[in-house]
Amino acid sequence: MKYSANSVWENKDEYDIAVIGAGHAGCEAALAAARMGFKTVVFTVSVESIAMMPCNPNIGGSSKGHLVKEVDALGGEMGKVIDKTFIQSKMLNQSKGPAVHSLRAQADKEQYSRTMRRVLENQENLDVRQTEVVNILTEEVCESGKKKVIGVQILSGGIYRVKAVVLCTGTYLRARCVYGEVSNATGPNGLQAANHLTECLKNLGINMYRFKTGTPARIDKRSIDFSKMEAQYGDERITPFSFTTNPDDIQIDQVPCWLTYTNEKTHEIIRNNLDRSPLYSGMIEGTGPRYCPSIEDKVVRFADKNRHQVFIEPEGIDTNEMYIGGMSSSLPEDVQYDMYRSVAGLEHAKIVRNAYAIEYDCIDARQLKPSLEFREIEGLFSGGQFNGSSGYEEAACQGLIAGINAARKLQKKEAVVLDRSQAYIGVLIDDLVTKESHEPYRMMTSRAEYRLLLRQDNADQRLTEIGYEIGLISQDRYERLKLKEKLIEEEVSRVEHVHVGTSEKVQNLLAQYQSTPLNSGISLAELIRRPELTYQVLATIDEARPEFPKDLSEEVSEQVNISIKYDGYIKRQKKQVEQFKKLENKKIPENIDYDQVKSLRIEAVQKLKEFRPVSIGQASRISGVSPADISVLLVYLGGR
Amino acid sequence: MKYSANSVWENKDEYDIAVIGAGHAGCEAALAAARMGFKTVVFTVSVESIAMMPCNPNIGGSSKGHLVKEVDALGGEMGKVIDKTFIQSKMLNQSKGPAVHSLRAQADKEQYSRTMRRVLENQENLDVRQTEVVNILTEEVCESGKKKVIGVQILSGGIYRVKAVVLCTGTYLRARCVYGEVSNATGPNGLQAANHLTECLKNLGINMYRFKTGTPARIDKRSIDFSKMEAQYGDERITPFSFTTNPDDIQIDQVPCWLTYTNEKTHEIIRNNLDRSPLYSGMIEGTGPRYCPSIEDKVVRFADKNRHQVFIEPEGIDTNEMYIGGMSSSLPEDVQYDMYRSVAGLEHAKIVRNAYAIEYDCIDARQLKPSLEFREIEGLFSGGQFNGSSGYEEAACQGLIAGINAARKLQKKEAVVLDRSQAYIGVLIDDLVTKESHEPYRMMTSRAEYRLLLRQDNADQRLTEIGYEIGLISQDRYERLKLKEKLIEEEVSRVEHVHVGTSEKVQNLLAQYQSTPLNSGISLAELIRRPELTYQVLATIDEARPEFPKDLSEEVSEQVNISIKYDGYIKRQKKQVEQFKKLENKKIPENIDYDQVKSLRIEAVQKLKEFRPVSIGQASRISGVSPADISVLLVYLGGR
Repeated sequence: MKYSANSVWENKDEYDIAVIGAGHAGCEAALAAARMGFKTVVFTVSVESIAMMPCNPNIGGSSKGHLVKEVDALGGEMGKVIDKTFIQSKMLNQSKGPAVHSLRAQADKEQYSRTMRRVLENQENLDVRQTEVVNILTEEVCESGKKKVIGVQILSGGIYRVKAVVLCTGTYLRARCVYGEVSNATGPNGLQAANHLTECLKNLGINMYRFKTGTPARIDKRSIDFSKMEAQYGDERITPFSFTTNPDDIQIDQVPCWLTYTNEKTHEIIRNNLDRSPLYSGMIEGTGPRYCPSIEDKVVRFADKNRHQVFIEPEGIDTNEMYIGGMSSSLPEDVQYDMYRSVAGLEHAKIVRNAYAIEYDCIDARQLKPSLEFREIEGLFSGGQFNGSSGYEEAACQGLIAGINAARKLQKKEAVVLDRSQAYIGVLIDDLVTKESHEPYRMMTSRAEYRLLLRQDNADQRLTEIGYEIGLISQDRYERLKLKEKLIEEEVSRVEHVHVGTSEKVQNLLAQYQSTPLNSGISLAELIRRPELTYQVLATIDEARPEFPKDLSEEVSEQVNISIKYDGYIKRQKKQVEQFKKLENKKIPENIDYDQVKSLRIEAVQKLKEFRPVSIGQASRISGVSPADISVLLVYLGGR
Repeated sequence: MKYSANSVWENKDEYDIAVIGAGHAGCEAALAAARMGFKTVVFTVSVESIAMMPCNPNIGGSSKGHLVKEVDALGGEMGKVIDKTFIQSKMLNQSKGPAVHSLRAQADKEQYSRTMRRVLENQENLDVRQTEVVNILTEEVCESGKKKVIGVQILSGGIYRVKAVVLCTGTYLRARCVYGEVSNATGPNGLQAANHLTECLKNLGINMYRFKTGTPARIDKRSIDFSKMEAQYGDERITPFSFTTNPDDIQIDQVPCWLTYTNEKTHEIIRNNLDRSPLYSGMIEGTGPRYCPSIEDKVVRFADKNRHQVFIEPEGIDTNEMYIGGMSSSLPEDVQYDMYRSVAGLEHAKIVRNAYAIEYDCIDARQLKPSLEFREIEGLFSGGQFNGSSGYEEAACQGLIAGINAARKLQKKEAVVLDRSQAYIGVLIDDLVTKESHEPYRMMTSRAEYRLLLRQDNADQRLTEIGYEIGLISQDRYERLKLKEKLIEEEVSRVEHVHVGTSEKVQNLLAQYQSTPLNSGISLAELIRRPELTYQVLATIDEARPEFPKDLSEEVSEQVNISIKYDGYIKRQKKQVEQFKKLENKKIPENIDYDQVKSLRIEAVQKLKEFRPVSIGQASRISGVSPADISVLLVYLGGR
């Protein structure tokens, strides 16, 4: 690129909000902003790459499924699109408790991308523009000394005046694809990198990181021997992601995935070639995701394991390309051939696309408020991989929140900040903006303190009302939720009061489920709390129960069962949340001078000055700030 | 990229033929080579960009429709794919004679690309590989001093040993997208350019050109006022491209295109900003296509015209992007907005993708034999835009011929060379390899001398047998053609002998078509030759005619009509072809020493030494070689 100052020109289309990037974060941000009534433009280097899935061909999975359900409950799009384009659906962890049930769907990548693109193209108030953004334009805000966004500039010099900008640049900023001795300055799949924006961001005082992530090879299905692998089928009864999708409307022929394993030979090939890995040779500067490691990482870190799982997943319903899940790598291409071909069933594997690592510029997200607005730059928001996260779902939920809060800012309304007791999204964003991160952040159920409350099945009950207040959930959908809640409440209350006697019918049913016979009468709720029983299986001895499915939907009965069964645990967790909320609600004034807080340890003062937490709760989660420091702070704030 | 010599490695997959690039030329080349039984690998920088249509959203059109039909008759794929993915179909020039009838179909670009990709993915003997090729490996052939292809090298240093290579790099070699002051080093739609191969080609002694082509903006349908435009509908009765597609199987809802015009205001905006056009400012080095000019070219070259046609064409069945046919441009983006918005119906146009010119490296195709093999490098073939042509169809037919001849070379069979009397493909390739070209070559009916013979409707009769001999046409398809030919011949012969009397029925029919009544009996053929009558309309007075459609298909009756109606013209043109063939069959020995040919003018000697024509026919088409020179040459050859 070369352009001179004299080519600066003003775009005449009027926009309120600009979204930079149309991946999973950018799509949600742009849709949210437009749906909240703001003229929005979303920039992408290639219209064809809208909602592209450059890595794994699935949406959801452990804890990520929760994020998608939460995005949906807030009025986001990801769940609806995957419901239209999945080719296999599976509820993970069904043998465990409902807190960790997680939905995962294999996507037809092309159809997912195309379907999301159509949603964007047809969204009122939203325009798609294919070009590269090279500058964020700001002005100084006199009073605060802060900067304020006033527009963006594109490659041709064109200026779009906007009031807010959402950065969703994903892995494109100064992207470099690396494998072996190759370092190619492109984004994924031969798409150009965005090489200009980083400099502008640095000039705005933004602290940049360099992260990396990786992807495995894609292998031609025709070259795979599936007889040496284990088929993995989808669920017979499909649960959709979106609360708006009727499960009965889903009619698809699901395709299988396949499971195989690495072996000692694989590991030997990898170990013998580690010196040629750009990770170990120092060629890759970026930091990779610990929880989504490359196969060479796994072999090195878990040297005692003699095999690792490899999932062979179709990239679409009718393509021959198969994703080799679990074997991402940046080893040289010749080593990749040997490595993949050492795996059972892949002996004659033909590589269509080789594995590679991708390095990109992203930010230290501690520069963001929990609203995902930059602390020092008014109107500049960011979401997705640019914030140092990893994964489509993590990107989507941040994009949604950033888009919502960009719009809320223009509405002069308070930002939407979900706390750690409300949503996985709250946990994710709180972690990102509070904790120092040296690697792409991945969501995990273990990161959530209140897992039993933050179930995917109740995401609608947790968040639909917020989505409705924001303006992303329709009146009709909101009312349907209210009705559902009413039905649950009524049914829970009824069940608590149903008395079960010791009739033969009852004893027989209990015997059928190896449940201790009754000596005397008991409430139906007590029976439901027995591990071996559920609300559903007790239907025959519950004569007053509303008729299924006419008066009692499956989703209502699921909620009734969970509410009663886990009542004690839920109550306990709600107590903990109350404690948490107390600290969370103790706001720390923005202008607090930590140097004036006596007895605060020096390290704590430094950290607190650096992070400037908005609440005692947030302060307590900063590493380097001890419980004693928090007590000191509480006393200080109480005394003020 | 950086890679060191020590990363050179040998790919272990065995291939016979490598095709570089998977656009319209590469797809045909790869499919032909694989179908002819050779292990083939096709390289592309992005699997998603296979068979991408980066410019106009249609296939066919004047003379290009002929090329597609010819590709199909030879066993190529383009016609079959567009038959599955078109969204409007129209036979152009129906008011004119059958020689210039030309089929054109609007494509759903995404579906076209996806459908072709699936064909490649599922083709036996063919593998798709996403990577950049950086080197063509050759060795010296001792006897001839020529070079010979032995393999290719990819970005990671990997070497694929092959016996033939087909270059189909399209517009990707050192691509640069240019508009106004912007010059971006990418291929179309944000895809990376291929920056390494040119140097290798130059080192092989290949003479490179730098050409440019351009594309107009894509505009959001929602911002267009179609009430100010004229709708252009498809045909009610659809003619497919492929001779294998049954018209009765086609069931689609066609979408309209729209016609509007530029005006004086448009032209004024363009004229006022010519100094900012990279074409006129000298920023673009490459030469553009004269017959597919940018709107600024048209305004400058046709200064007296006060308007130009603008066709608004959908890019797919369900996208909002509309192609602005007739207004390609490399003017600055701000000028583009003003220019497009000055057109009726585009007053509020929102640009999704701006217009741009693209510059790329291609070759002087006179370095090729008519087989599309490089004269000086054995086993190196090339096709498509890389050969200096323009257009998807021109690319496809060259790719097909290059792929066929790469395979024929390995079969040790003579190359397939179509001459100018056999096919538009023959005209195109002969022009490319014979005539000096300073701009992208576009097919036009006026370039063909024997238009009445080279009709699209008889492409199957002209070429299916060749496709069958090559091995790209099945026995069944070949037999169906033979049957069709037999039916045509029998019916033509019958009709020549049917005598029509002066019955009232006959006179009434003639009156109905304003045709002179008969005074006496006449043959049915004579009546068909009357301009106002056709074979088809005379059915009612032709009682012995085979039953339609049971014994006489529409395609047979069409051929009968044309054969009889244009009998005189066809015979005359066939005479001319005989003359042409005589010269074409007078081969010039490869080792001829033109310096020894007395009385040959110096200019002719120079040109002949440079081009080294294979036949007197080819020699006669070289500019700078006069009819007198040809006579001298004929005498010399006769006397040898």
